[in-house]
Amino acid sequence: MITKNQIKFLRSLSQKKYRIQSQKFLVEGKRIVKELIQSSALIDQIYVSEDFIIKNADFILFDSNISYEIIPNDVISKIKTTDSSQEVFAISLIKNSLDLQIQTPILVLDDISDPGNLGTLLRSASWYGINNVLVSSKSVDIYNPKVVRSAMGAHFHITNLYQLSEEKIRSILNNESINVIAATLNGSSHKNFDPSNNWALILGNEAHGVTESMLNIANEQVSIHKSGNMESLNVGVAGSVLIDRFSTK
Amino acid sequence: MITKNQIKFLRSLSQKKYRIQSQKFLVEGKRIVKELIQSSALIDQIYVSEDFIIKNADFILFDSNISYEIIPNDVISKIKTTDSSQEVFAISLIKNSLDLQIQTPILVLDDISDPGNLGTLLRSASWYGINNVLVSSKSVDIYNPKVVRSAMGAHFHITNLYQLSEEKIRSILNNESINVIAATLNGSSHKNFDPSNNWALILGNEAHGVTESMLNIANEQVSIHKSGNMESLNVGVAGSVLIDRFSTK
Repeated sequence: MITKNQIKFLRSLSQKKYRIQSQKFLVEGKRIVKELIQSSALIDQIYVSEDFIIKNADFILFDSNISYEIIPNDVISKIKTTDSSQEVFAISLIKNSLDLQIQTPILVLDDISDPGNLGTLLRSASWYGINNVLVSSKSVDIYNPKVVRSAMGAHFHITNLYQLSEEKIRSILNNESINVIAATLNGSSHKNFDPSNNWALILGNEAHGVTESMLNIANEQVSIHKSGNMESLNVGVAGSVLIDRFSTK
Repeated sequence: MITKNQIKFLRSLSQKKYRIQSQKFLVEGKRIVKELIQSSALIDQIYVSEDFIIKNADFILFDSNISYEIIPNDVISKIKTTDSSQEVFAISLIKNSLDLQIQTPILVLDDISDPGNLGTLLRSASWYGINNVLVSSKSVDIYNPKVVRSAMGAHFHITNLYQLSEEKIRSILNNESINVIAATLNGSSHKNFDPSNNWALILGNEAHGVTESMLNIANEQVSIHKSGNMESLNVGVAGSVLIDRFSTK
């Protein structure tokens, strides 16, 4: 049975400073915990409610040798981060970025502010097998519970997923063999765009686009030209459309 | 100045039954109200807070001849539907579906349950100039405030946007000249898929996919095959990727 200190710790993980301090993050929901169990990512602890056990006897966890703690039903409301909680939680470990081994293709997320958009882009990157994703430190925290929820387990599959300073990202991209492409409103049409094999794609902020310092290191710019009347595409959609085109030429 | 009855009416529009009764829906936020003003959609009324007027003197509304009502700052909390409200609201009219003039290309949204996903798909459809979107009645209401917010004004640009019964949608698609394509997990790869010009694309529920009765009327099935380890793509992303491929061959 879960202890008071464990409850306190789980709750603390909704705050960035405690995630950094412990180098751990919280995962919530059946599908994401399943992805965690099926991946090679490190599991620190798993928690399930009494109700969850009764309703989900066939859940992958109960067929595994992984141990778990039980949360009394009346304590769930203290832990869950969403109204539609499925009452299964896991704590996973944040990977350190000391020994970076980044290779193309690379997705760069520069100042993405909406957690849902960031999560969607991680999910798409992982779907298309992009294993190098660099997120600028100005973006929303990649271990924010809402990001983790909408990424649907991408955190456990993307080999190199790191949140780094803009300077660090620029120094990684500053390499002649990498074709750095920025998604902007005035670039070449994505339709027949050939990024070559060694591409890094930079996606920018929802309202302001790619920052100037990032634009300066780009070799090319690409755009999805509109056929209708809308002012903009959602960045999660635009980025995914470009990844789709770049990945499946 | 806004009256008590107007406040009551604005609040009532967060509920589907009052939207149906009045045939009106609420629009909130600067970008969406701007899209409404710039479109040919019908504006019933516009409301702005005292703060909004001071902070947004250059807003398109104030350069137009459109009249508006002022909301005292202390009443805003009664009306806004989101914490990040920009304190500008409009009431627009729901189009009736008595005289349907549907033409290909058609996007069919079959039982989409998440408001953000439905809004994203409407936004993408409008970006790519898809002017015929049929949403099944099992899907979330197309005039739900969250759908309207994430559609970013698509409601005002899509010429034929209707929520209809599954039976009605099937009867529209039951036409030899339309190539009905369902997005499934086991279809032909989207990479070199040629939908012909007269396509209707059916996207299904986030968890369960396209319903069997809709699958039965499809001529073809299309899939985005994964290259990575994820279990699924977000339906807003998957639909947008397919629309991108179909629209810009």
